[in-house]
Amino acid sequence: MAICHHHQPSFTIPSSFPFTTNLSNKSQLHLPSSFRCNLSVTTNLEPEPVYTAVKSFAPATVANLGPGFDFLGCAVDGIGDYVTLKIDPQVHPGEVSITEITGTGNSANKLSKNPIWNCAGIAAISVMKMLNIRSVGLSLSLEKGLPLGSGLGSSAASAAAAAIAVNEIFGGKLPALDLVLAGLESEAKVSGYHADNIAPAIMGGFVLVRSYDPLELIPLQFPVDKNLYFVLVNPEFEAPTKKMRAALPKEITMSHHVWNSSQAGALVAAVLQGDLKGFGKALSSDKIVEPRRAPLIPGMDAVKKAALEAGAYGCTISGAGPTAVAVTDNEEKGREIGEKMVEAFMAEGNLKAVAMVKQLDRVGARLVSSISR
Amino acid sequence: MAICHHHQPSFTIPSSFPFTTNLSNKSQLHLPSSFRCNLSVTTNLEPEPVYTAVKSFAPATVANLGPGFDFLGCAVDGIGDYVTLKIDPQVHPGEVSITEITGTGNSANKLSKNPIWNCAGIAAISVMKMLNIRSVGLSLSLEKGLPLGSGLGSSAASAAAAAIAVNEIFGGKLPALDLVLAGLESEAKVSGYHADNIAPAIMGGFVLVRSYDPLELIPLQFPVDKNLYFVLVNPEFEAPTKKMRAALPKEITMSHHVWNSSQAGALVAAVLQGDLKGFGKALSSDKIVEPRRAPLIPGMDAVKKAALEAGAYGCTISGAGPTAVAVTDNEEKGREIGEKMVEAFMAEGNLKAVAMVKQLDRVGARLVSSISR
Repeated sequence: MAICHHHQPSFTIPSSFPFTTNLSNKSQLHLPSSFRCNLSVTTNLEPEPVYTAVKSFAPATVANLGPGFDFLGCAVDGIGDYVTLKIDPQVHPGEVSITEITGTGNSANKLSKNPIWNCAGIAAISVMKMLNIRSVGLSLSLEKGLPLGSGLGSSAASAAAAAIAVNEIFGGKLPALDLVLAGLESEAKVSGYHADNIAPAIMGGFVLVRSYDPLELIPLQFPVDKNLYFVLVNPEFEAPTKKMRAALPKEITMSHHVWNSSQAGALVAAVLQGDLKGFGKALSSDKIVEPRRAPLIPGMDAVKKAALEAGAYGCTISGAGPTAVAVTDNEEKGREIGEKMVEAFMAEGNLKAVAMVKQLDRVGARLVSSISR
Repeated sequence: MAICHHHQPSFTIPSSFPFTTNLSNKSQLHLPSSFRCNLSVTTNLEPEPVYTAVKSFAPATVANLGPGFDFLGCAVDGIGDYVTLKIDPQVHPGEVSITEITGTGNSANKLSKNPIWNCAGIAAISVMKMLNIRSVGLSLSLEKGLPLGSGLGSSAASAAAAAIAVNEIFGGKLPALDLVLAGLESEAKVSGYHADNIAPAIMGGFVLVRSYDPLELIPLQFPVDKNLYFVLVNPEFEAPTKKMRAALPKEITMSHHVWNSSQAGALVAAVLQGDLKGFGKALSSDKIVEPRRAPLIPGMDAVKKAALEAGAYGCTISGAGPTAVAVTDNEEKGREIGEKMVEAFMAEGNLKAVAMVKQLDRVGARLVSSISR
């Protein structure tokens, strides 16, 4: 079930290509010994664009999910970033230019338009390199639907939307795993070498990051006949990823390790078995990370308590926060839970907050429109 | 999917009973607040025996499974302990007498016939108490098919076989979870309060122990259409559980914790998805426990290497050792792997060893014969 990739983006071939095509010199590949599955090697053939313009969307993501700290994440539907990408003769061939950044809040002003300092730009350049694009220049505009530093995978959504846009404008040659690698380059510069946002942003659903070298991702399918709603409550509070990471313990006791590992196993089982009650319990059960981070987010403990009292199956911090995430199987119930959580943020943390109720996104980054050549 | 039970064996009612039957005084129950599911409460009604004698079997178990340390185990078919239990007018009513212990190796001589010091005896007494048996005495004979201290759940197999025998002779009133609690009493006295052997010994298949208070177990079904063979290689070497436990690190780094947790998640996913390759990889990936324990078992590193080179999907220490466990999907292949592992134990550890190839046991403890009244 796992999909694997050695972290060697320069050795990439579209999986849709016949395996023997255009390998000018196989003996030069020097495959590393740990290279085991989904062999994927770049050709020198430059693909032609199939569209003159595309618009893509990539969803917000909830990483960590309590005991899934640093290796588990999932995508949430209906909120995320958009990228519009155009073949642009004004742009130097092989390069990408960011023409516009728009969006809610102040996220648009905070982001650089220099592509090598912008999440979407870095991912776009990485995919262009993988595809060996030398003859076509691209212009990119980014529409932020996600606030920065919210714990909802804002940077990953931009990177995912850009990666899929570049891939699709040239015919969708690269498999998802290569797009995750491109997104990882972006994440590494912006928030650390972690795939738990970028992988679900690209692939949708729940994704477990089993290893980085080689990159190996395990999609976990939540049963299609069951509903899963996330109540996302985002307070007006900045919780910088760095500070949240500094709060983590360096050493963990064996009993806490065993506890959290067993909850991680239970979390994975609950996703695959569609057991929402078990999912919520496991989500709420982290004894290692949440107890260190929650005190840094004013009101978080009360917010979690309010969510559970209002009938949520579980609640924890989304990503590195400050957004709180609760789960339920009913949209209306989700709105009630959200109201209680917003009240608790105000009452106990003196923070304004907004609640959203969103379903699991099972698709991941995708094109929303395109103009054929 | 989880089955739960507050750790209060005195509050047990057979789940097969109508819920309102024979509760002489409901208000005396004082249910604890964390009591959430599978309510199970003892009645004062003493069940009649339905058989004059029964013979039961409980399988060997592989606990830990690498990154599943202390919370995951599974049962292996065709090797285990037998208990023969008889209604015995010679035995004081409400008590159990151990009449005989037989078996391979020296296990029979090492075990006490005093029921309060014997795994099978403790579990039998515990089930008799749960059932409120006061009018009937039982005699028990134990046939050990498992060596002691092998890492194959020897004590759990005895306890499981005894627990199910007592329950069945009185009509099978108690649910599996109560039998696990009875077995846990036994395990607590013999090898520590751990359910990762006793739960699969009673329930079969893979079982994840999510919590102890309340006891909550998550059965993980390996797909029925897939084969899973365990290669169990038991060297002539004593690895006392205590020493193996003392070898464990007290503190764990965050990076090792995240690694092992993600492997635990991957292990659970692989079981539920029937992904043998992923299962083997996760099984082999423990960075916390195996690296400390393997050096205490002469030749273990070489045995693991030999197993993997011979084509096993994965290999680790079974329980606290010294048995090595490898996995494959083919019985014949399993025998070849076993031979290589035996050779490695001799070549690198100077230890004689025997190999067995056994399938996953999906049933758990069961009656093998009975004599009706």
